[in-house]
Amino acid sequence: MNSAAATGSTMLMGLIQMSVKKNKPANLTRCAQLVQIAAKNGARLVALPECFNCPYGTEYFAEYAETIPGESTEFLSKLAQQFKVWLVGGSMPERDGDKLYNTSTVFSPTGECVAKHRKVHLFDIDIPGSITFKESETLSPGNSFTTFNVDGFKIGLGICYDIRFPEMAQAYAKLGCQVLLYPGAFNMTTGPAHWELLARSRAVDNQVYVASISPARSVDADYIAYGHTLCVDPWGCLVAEADETEQIVYAEIDLNEVKSIRQQIPVSQQKRSDLYQLQFKK
Amino acid sequence: MNSAAATGSTMLMGLIQMSVKKNKPANLTRCAQLVQIAAKNGARLVALPECFNCPYGTEYFAEYAETIPGESTEFLSKLAQQFKVWLVGGSMPERDGDKLYNTSTVFSPTGECVAKHRKVHLFDIDIPGSITFKESETLSPGNSFTTFNVDGFKIGLGICYDIRFPEMAQAYAKLGCQVLLYPGAFNMTTGPAHWELLARSRAVDNQVYVASISPARSVDADYIAYGHTLCVDPWGCLVAEADETEQIVYAEIDLNEVKSIRQQIPVSQQKRSDLYQLQFKK
Repeated sequence: MNSAAATGSTMLMGLIQMSVKKNKPANLTRCAQLVQIAAKNGARLVALPECFNCPYGTEYFAEYAETIPGESTEFLSKLAQQFKVWLVGGSMPERDGDKLYNTSTVFSPTGECVAKHRKVHLFDIDIPGSITFKESETLSPGNSFTTFNVDGFKIGLGICYDIRFPEMAQAYAKLGCQVLLYPGAFNMTTGPAHWELLARSRAVDNQVYVASISPARSVDADYIAYGHTLCVDPWGCLVAEADETEQIVYAEIDLNEVKSIRQQIPVSQQKRSDLYQLQFKK
Repeated sequence: MNSAAATGSTMLMGLIQMSVKKNKPANLTRCAQLVQIAAKNGARLVALPECFNCPYGTEYFAEYAETIPGESTEFLSKLAQQFKVWLVGGSMPERDGDKLYNTSTVFSPTGECVAKHRKVHLFDIDIPGSITFKESETLSPGNSFTTFNVDGFKIGLGICYDIRFPEMAQAYAKLGCQVLLYPGAFNMTTGPAHWELLARSRAVDNQVYVASISPARSVDADYIAYGHTLCVDPWGCLVAEADETEQIVYAEIDLNEVKSIRQQIPVSQQKRSDLYQLQFKK
């Protein structure tokens, strides 16, 4: 039996806060090293950060974009197979015809692509004197929710700015998810203010585990990522959190913990569907 | 001009973390003293905690319950008039026919009752070895949302456990609220875990001010309130927070701050209504 296989109700996740450079082949090589370490340490599911193969910035997306399948996703597929892990490929710029997307792919331990999520909410913000960014200048948005199943866990996938929209997390909870994964790259303004708060909010409101996976901070990058990759449990407590440096964050998640908290404070059964209802596209 | 009147885009709130005893007349007297102090210090809106005239506990609700209008609400109406403030009467057990409700009333500076909110989500939780409570044993739930207007602010009202349901806050935001008030009495288990987190979550997700108003902690009470009355701004930062002792928390709120943050991170305009929609009873 593979040492990384889940036992009983628990699963170990390895969240890779990798340092992303401008050199794509170097990023893929570093990615492989870190996935290998995570697998060796028993991670059954390994997750990469947003833009794991490309610097984050609208000026880079077109240059680094690939089709899916393509070089980077074939690389991820082989890594998943080689190390027998579920591999969540953070995100990468995807080219489809004349459109670009910010896209996450998920591979099973047999190398099969089991999910593909295109960022639904594009990151367009304008905080004068602090941070202005407009993904929609170059990217198109995705138009669907994305879930996949691993060893009894149902997992909902979002990318970065998607976490600001509670309706998406609520939809995932209604679809039966116990875990939400958000590869993301918050910055030095929104990171300290909202990175941990948003993860804890989604976790406690939906009684799910939430993991947010950031690139490591590079102070000489155009866009300086906050780092602080973390995992929060369904009670809203931090299971594990990184500082800003390159590292792997390990977090054990437990279906019994989800079940227990949902029995203690049964909010999902106490919702007043006679007064409000979230309608969503399944 | 009344010194407590709002000037421009701002308003001062006085959040009264009063110590609630078993003696109802003593509670009303103490309430009057604290409202007077808050008004004297310039508060334009004064808010009391959940169960301001009654100990919190299913065994007390029937005994302390009153009709509305009744003794306690007439008292609140006169206080609002006397001190020329908007007075949010925390909550109190209300009797209507053979039913009991946990109800909040709001009075204008002319003493008019401008809003009445019956707790929509009853507090039924069971955390073994820690806290078990079942409001629904004695109370009936309210069936509507409640908003009112003060000096250009639109305010949404919830009571305690209502704050655990993000859909209610989202509905209030959609109705145009910039402020949410939650008189509430969290306990020594859920208080440290979730009191601040839930207020900050509602604030940052809906880009509104959120104030949660607790009774002071009485360690000899049957139900020990957490205290920590607080106000959070639309960025998710604490404006002010009490410890557990009896006191008045003052918080200045500013419509321009709401407007500015909503421009910087325009999430309400970026929601994907093609993918999800909150439907609610207006």
